[in-house]
Amino acid sequence: MSRVICPLLSTRVTTAEKAVEHIRPGDNVGMSGFTGAGYPKALPTALHDRMVAAHARGEDFRIGLWTGASTAPDADGVLAEAKGVSSRLPYNSDPTMRSLINSGEVDYVDAHLSHSAQHMWFGFYGNLDVAVVEVTAVLPNGLLVPSSSVGNNKTWLDQADRVILEVNHWQPREFEGFHDVYYGTQLPPHRRPIQLTDPMQRIGDPYLRVDPAKVVAVVETDRPDRNSPFTPPDETSRAIAGHVVDFLRHEVRAGRMPPSLLPLQSGVGNVANAVLAGLDGSEFTDLVAFTEVLQDGLLDLLDSGTVRAASATSFGLSDVGVERFLANISSYKGRILLRSEEISNHPELVRRLGVIAMNGMIEADIYGNVNSTHIAGSRIMNGIGGSGDFTRNAFLNFFLTPSTAKGGKVSAFVPMASHVDHTEHDVQIIVSEHGLADLRGLSPRQRAPRIIDHCADPSFRPALHDYFARAQAARPDAVHTPHLLGEALSWHERFLETGSMHAG
Amino acid sequence: MSRVICPLLSTRVTTAEKAVEHIRPGDNVGMSGFTGAGYPKALPTALHDRMVAAHARGEDFRIGLWTGASTAPDADGVLAEAKGVSSRLPYNSDPTMRSLINSGEVDYVDAHLSHSAQHMWFGFYGNLDVAVVEVTAVLPNGLLVPSSSVGNNKTWLDQADRVILEVNHWQPREFEGFHDVYYGTQLPPHRRPIQLTDPMQRIGDPYLRVDPAKVVAVVETDRPDRNSPFTPPDETSRAIAGHVVDFLRHEVRAGRMPPSLLPLQSGVGNVANAVLAGLDGSEFTDLVAFTEVLQDGLLDLLDSGTVRAASATSFGLSDVGVERFLANISSYKGRILLRSEEISNHPELVRRLGVIAMNGMIEADIYGNVNSTHIAGSRIMNGIGGSGDFTRNAFLNFFLTPSTAKGGKVSAFVPMASHVDHTEHDVQIIVSEHGLADLRGLSPRQRAPRIIDHCADPSFRPALHDYFARAQAARPDAVHTPHLLGEALSWHERFLETGSMHAG
Repeated sequence: MSRVICPLLSTRVTTAEKAVEHIRPGDNVGMSGFTGAGYPKALPTALHDRMVAAHARGEDFRIGLWTGASTAPDADGVLAEAKGVSSRLPYNSDPTMRSLINSGEVDYVDAHLSHSAQHMWFGFYGNLDVAVVEVTAVLPNGLLVPSSSVGNNKTWLDQADRVILEVNHWQPREFEGFHDVYYGTQLPPHRRPIQLTDPMQRIGDPYLRVDPAKVVAVVETDRPDRNSPFTPPDETSRAIAGHVVDFLRHEVRAGRMPPSLLPLQSGVGNVANAVLAGLDGSEFTDLVAFTEVLQDGLLDLLDSGTVRAASATSFGLSDVGVERFLANISSYKGRILLRSEEISNHPELVRRLGVIAMNGMIEADIYGNVNSTHIAGSRIMNGIGGSGDFTRNAFLNFFLTPSTAKGGKVSAFVPMASHVDHTEHDVQIIVSEHGLADLRGLSPRQRAPRIIDHCADPSFRPALHDYFARAQAARPDAVHTPHLLGEALSWHERFLETGSMHAG
Repeated sequence: MSRVICPLLSTRVTTAEKAVEHIRPGDNVGMSGFTGAGYPKALPTALHDRMVAAHARGEDFRIGLWTGASTAPDADGVLAEAKGVSSRLPYNSDPTMRSLINSGEVDYVDAHLSHSAQHMWFGFYGNLDVAVVEVTAVLPNGLLVPSSSVGNNKTWLDQADRVILEVNHWQPREFEGFHDVYYGTQLPPHRRPIQLTDPMQRIGDPYLRVDPAKVVAVVETDRPDRNSPFTPPDETSRAIAGHVVDFLRHEVRAGRMPPSLLPLQSGVGNVANAVLAGLDGSEFTDLVAFTEVLQDGLLDLLDSGTVRAASATSFGLSDVGVERFLANISSYKGRILLRSEEISNHPELVRRLGVIAMNGMIEADIYGNVNSTHIAGSRIMNGIGGSGDFTRNAFLNFFLTPSTAKGGKVSAFVPMASHVDHTEHDVQIIVSEHGLADLRGLSPRQRAPRIIDHCADPSFRPALHDYFARAQAARPDAVHTPHLLGEALSWHERFLETGSMHAG
């Protein structure tokens, strides 16, 4: 049965091969997609083919590619393979795209997710030529039932010159009513307060809107999202989770948080899932999530009642998680809301609601500056994503990481971070499997022993203490943030040279 | 004539020497004061004397000192001289205090100004034992007419166990009505939207409140604020200002801003004053400021009508500026509002209003990471202040700096920032006297040539280009942010060794 029951838009139904003719070399293309959910499934491959053919003819065919966040091999991946992307924003986790970014073939703009839609609308990124947006259905009145992520779709649909819709039959038709798309944003000076005071409050519409005159093509698909494999928490992740849950208990006992805590945000990945699992086995109940991505761990908490409801911008489930979700979809209605990433990550709301932010990282230095994006200063992994949106405005923020990587050869705690995404002014709590460093109200010099002794792997602690001591001795009139500049990045140099941060 | 006409509080009037007995060793003390305005004038000296006497007896007498922002030699300065401060937040510019911070005798917590009041209230800094707040008058009903800054006074008065008021007769009695103190803040999860949609909208009261039962002493003073000397803009500042004004024109022509721009924030100092002076000679009119500090430059614009009104948290005038302000005080009523720094710098409001943020810096690296606080990585100057609050949430943000310091020996543009306060994700426009680099929508590798060619001093450009080229060549598979880790901080090392960043 068709899901394009709008009399007007049903006349635009065509093939991906025909639809893609509306994308021209040099266009900026805003695609749907967030954490491998809700990205277009057919257009990118058709575009890949067109690009490859153009390149074979000696023609340049590259686009500026804007999304919600990460997509999948059949979106970012195929376009990267075609060498068809000149610039990319605001977040990528595709390995092929990552290689091209790191080899300099793609210019990557690593924007805060809460900024990406407004900066596009402000005109800071140039004109948006085409939007390619996956939806679940097109209603008779032309309204669009969103798919498994909302991301930047509202802005892409509003702002693009031309719109291509992908209607994916794989997405459950029951999604109708799971979304809350806020249509109250304006350009300054016409902005108004966002009147949301509870994570689950509806402030928008369940539908995306599109000007039908701009819709140049509608393509029907039936293809699954790229779902992330879910691995059960390992011992390290469980230890990290244990420290977090203990600390939350401690804060409740100290009267700094209510027993049902404050709205939870947790980043993507297995450590985040482990923290959620840790909460599920705890005394905490009636929690609520105000987050970016709904992972399997959150489904568990919704099922057990530990979490009463969750607001996000996207799903990020495993195949098993999707099956569970679909089998019980009606039980989640009203308990899960998907919003635009501009709203899910909005500083106004994150601060007002008092979110507890929990995100992973690559490394922190001994003074609490956090690197979330770069390996040894130069090579980017994924991007900052929403970690800055939440961390900066949270009531309480955590950075979670195993103390080492590469089989113990690389320390997550270093003398100086090789790149800074979250500054000393913003970082509050750092956690590894060894323990937790509460940095609130501490000077940089006070933070160092806490981070070293509580979080660093014991095999790296003596060298970190040694650096800290020698840095203080070297410039006794400049010990606010003690550093030996000639040595500050030597751990990263050693890693590049030997594959290990350990000396000798 | 007394300004303490409250029957109850007038019974608490005493001397500074008696009042200071309410401050005990180990107390956390929240003082008023922001940019040398509105700080207590008598208590700190009395406290200094008490501390010196205690130290002479071999007793420890140190406090945790919290303020709005910077104070003055007779507040921060005397307490530092007494070695009576164990920790300090959230901002300091006093040279004596700075030395103690850098020698490790004072632990300095460099917090975002918009965070400092709420983090205290959240319980992250410990108990606030005493508030020492300067006011202009105490009304019969016990309400307090604020003084020349509001800063964190609302929170200090609310949260402190004991309160000492300084009533300063030097502050104009006509200040009544110049303030808007918001009393709608709550702890999460009880926070509501802040319903401000225009920079000059009143959302609070003209008065500070205090529980009279907590007021242990009231001291009357008659002493001027520490006013900053005002120097007319030099050629470098005027050149920077010219680039900024040209760029604003360009943005208006491109349709990205209305002709009356958007609310202006400008940091403290002569470059900021120069930008204001540049606007005053331009075609722009009917502007409005939503900023932290009202400097002389802003008075000029208010007088000429270029700026119709200004919201801030503090004055930061020169002696001449104060005279002008006092002589025409009635003409500024309703055109100047002073708010709590939690509100003047609030992310919710900065983003909603679409502020144009203009702040100074110490250095930027060629990829657009900005250091606002540290010399050569370790030695702190003043602190981040409100620059992060505004930059992060602004519609448009500028960082302004002369291209060199120390007579041309030190470059404000370096291979890698020795400390990062504003990350690549946040920094949009960098300006020196040589030109302007618009970094919006650019990858790090695209930013480098713009910053080098437009902003760096020509004497440093070849070395910066050389670093950039060699860094790309060294790790061709990691050129997202090209760096040579062994050399990235060598400019700062050379400066520490030779006093110059120039080689050989």
